[in-house]
Amino acid sequence: MLSENISRDPDGTLRFAGHSVTELAARYGTPLYLFDEERIRANCRMYKEAFRKHFGPGSLPLYASKAASFKEMYRIMADEGMGVDAVSAGEIHTALAAGFPAERIMFHGDGKTDEDIIYALEAGVGRFVVDNPEELEILNREALKRGMKQDVLLRITPGIDPHTYAEVNTGSVDVKFGMPILTGQAADFVRAALNCPGIGLKGYHIHVGSQVFDEDVFERAADVMTDFIAEMRDRFGYAAEEMNFGGGYGVRYVDSDPPVDIPARIGEVAARLKSDMKKAGLSSLRVFMEPGRSIVADAGMTVYTVSTVKHIPGFKNYVTTDGGMTDNPRFCLYRARYTVLHGSRETAEKDRFDLVGRCCESGDILQKNVSLPADIRRGDIVCVCTTGAYNYSMASNYNRLGRPPVVMLTKDGSRIAVRRETAEDLCALDV
Amino acid sequence: MLSENISRDPDGTLRFAGHSVTELAARYGTPLYLFDEERIRANCRMYKEAFRKHFGPGSLPLYASKAASFKEMYRIMADEGMGVDAVSAGEIHTALAAGFPAERIMFHGDGKTDEDIIYALEAGVGRFVVDNPEELEILNREALKRGMKQDVLLRITPGIDPHTYAEVNTGSVDVKFGMPILTGQAADFVRAALNCPGIGLKGYHIHVGSQVFDEDVFERAADVMTDFIAEMRDRFGYAAEEMNFGGGYGVRYVDSDPPVDIPARIGEVAARLKSDMKKAGLSSLRVFMEPGRSIVADAGMTVYTVSTVKHIPGFKNYVTTDGGMTDNPRFCLYRARYTVLHGSRETAEKDRFDLVGRCCESGDILQKNVSLPADIRRGDIVCVCTTGAYNYSMASNYNRLGRPPVVMLTKDGSRIAVRRETAEDLCALDV
Repeated sequence: MLSENISRDPDGTLRFAGHSVTELAARYGTPLYLFDEERIRANCRMYKEAFRKHFGPGSLPLYASKAASFKEMYRIMADEGMGVDAVSAGEIHTALAAGFPAERIMFHGDGKTDEDIIYALEAGVGRFVVDNPEELEILNREALKRGMKQDVLLRITPGIDPHTYAEVNTGSVDVKFGMPILTGQAADFVRAALNCPGIGLKGYHIHVGSQVFDEDVFERAADVMTDFIAEMRDRFGYAAEEMNFGGGYGVRYVDSDPPVDIPARIGEVAARLKSDMKKAGLSSLRVFMEPGRSIVADAGMTVYTVSTVKHIPGFKNYVTTDGGMTDNPRFCLYRARYTVLHGSRETAEKDRFDLVGRCCESGDILQKNVSLPADIRRGDIVCVCTTGAYNYSMASNYNRLGRPPVVMLTKDGSRIAVRRETAEDLCALDV
Repeated sequence: MLSENISRDPDGTLRFAGHSVTELAARYGTPLYLFDEERIRANCRMYKEAFRKHFGPGSLPLYASKAASFKEMYRIMADEGMGVDAVSAGEIHTALAAGFPAERIMFHGDGKTDEDIIYALEAGVGRFVVDNPEELEILNREALKRGMKQDVLLRITPGIDPHTYAEVNTGSVDVKFGMPILTGQAADFVRAALNCPGIGLKGYHIHVGSQVFDEDVFERAADVMTDFIAEMRDRFGYAAEEMNFGGGYGVRYVDSDPPVDIPARIGEVAARLKSDMKKAGLSSLRVFMEPGRSIVADAGMTVYTVSTVKHIPGFKNYVTTDGGMTDNPRFCLYRARYTVLHGSRETAEKDRFDLVGRCCESGDILQKNVSLPADIRRGDIVCVCTTGAYNYSMASNYNRLGRPPVVMLTKDGSRIAVRRETAEDLCALDV
């Protein structure tokens, strides 16, 4: 199986985190988002332990909560001692409502509004990751107005192409985020921040892409950023104390994706950073990373009921589900690959199907050309694996479909973390 | 200007439906969806009048409500005497909650669940558009259980390629919708329906794509379907009374899109259909079409506040807004083109920018390479035109961003149709 938390009983029943998916489907209905709480916690501990081992005191992995943001997730992150990367007032609000400590929140984003800035400042978030000079100016002004000094990292664009999806390529020069080193704008940004009395400049933030498989992306980033830190020290007498490498490591969506030994990779980045810093005559840095996908992706599975099976002789076969691009738009957006499994049987006789959604849109496809039992039929359960990241959080109500519930699985049982959205809920804001 | 309801005052103020967009932005906040009620009504009347003129009694345009589904929209449709195409229990619920008459609703979709079928049957929707044999069987069973006979159209795949976006190409054989004529499956589907005592077969439904510009797509569809109707009459003695051509005509998103004379086109389709039917010895048909986009697209505009302007010398310029792929995912999904206008000034000195959103995702782009005043800055208002269709309805809460409000504009004033989603709303379903 793709992941250790997926297994199949001899009678064909698919299990996720030890639970029968067909039993869960019967209990909670479909479509249904499942989360394996133990896997989330284990992924957090893997990062925490690697950080403890390889980086200096005060270093911390921050869960990139845009991957899956709801109250129960922030409770788990609080419990595991993780930091959190939030990208909107909505994420901060949710984290705080769940009791997550504000000081372990870093507030990101290239389009913060004045209202967002004031909200986060007053909420006491630990760090702003300031994206651009306009934001810096407003944050400084609002902090001074309140007699505050806000700790920040500056978002820097290092000019590194991580060879991941174009859509998640955030480190090269030509992106909407941050200020580039290459053009001199990053240095101007540092100078401006140092001149803001309401700003406590703690260091830099970069993001060289998520879903990183490439061996040395973070190591190249360490090289570039150590040079930049040294250059800023030499030019402005400012030595950064903190460096946030953003992003996170790749996860396996299909069997052909390579496994990533994340602790080993973190060790390599740490060694490279240490060596770079020594060469540059720099002392210790607090290091942050922002894994989102690699914390929650393999802790998720989506469960659907088949509504239609169409064999169009000479053309193609379709399996239509009771969900689709509304609960998982990632095939539509990125042609993202997923592993699809039948919920109750594994037969020798297979056929190829496009797994599609129920939206009135021919592009509503969950995955093309998947292998499923040839006799699959209406009422069967199908599961899409590794959907913990960017599924619930990107879901829409297109076609006026309610979003599925989020159910948290543990060894002892299961509980609803986000309840199913009803037709009444959909009209809640309508006048 | 792209559309008659957009104008600019001599002082540079942009007006939509006669209202200053900057005044609306100040009153309602941004991002903000605007709808021009008079334009929606005028578009309805254009279709209604063309139908009255060209098609027989009982013919009706049905608003494809997935384009923009909220209570106020169904009230307008009820008021204008339109029918409605609904694709989920959620759309039906919203329509009924707004007082829309159930008998003028056609219920579509390739993935109806048992619950949906029962709900719509009991709600008394006028027609089911039955997509596949599984649905037919369940609908028949549930109707009989209740002593009912449900009127239906069968969804037939005519094998016509409309040369529109691949994502909205729904008439060719290889799609998830309906049963194809080419393979003989459509004929089997008709035979099965005729043998269901709980089913009142009224005719056929096809969909040859939305955003149709191609001159003769509907005329080719008329040819194919007249042949099919005659063939079914000859084989099964069943003469269809109703024919739903689905889809709708294209709208102009950018100046280079050709204008479509919709009433003239409808006249041409009607003439072709009449001639085809005469040749086939068929008597009158009630005709339906399902315009969605061409009812609401040019009645919509989205208003944003600029948060950041970045000039990256030698690379690109970015204008970041306080919205993005969350309120308009159509560039991300289809690379859809839009016209972008500054809200308060038209200057001679322009520059090229990528208009991007605030999501923490480098692919969060509203439109690439748009011309805007070179001195555009934080706090300015920018507007994306022709966003009435598939923007509000496809919106998500990605990055935990609340969805913008929908404000309806009339000659006399403006009113909220859907209120802004708050951070508290976003947590409403969280445990």
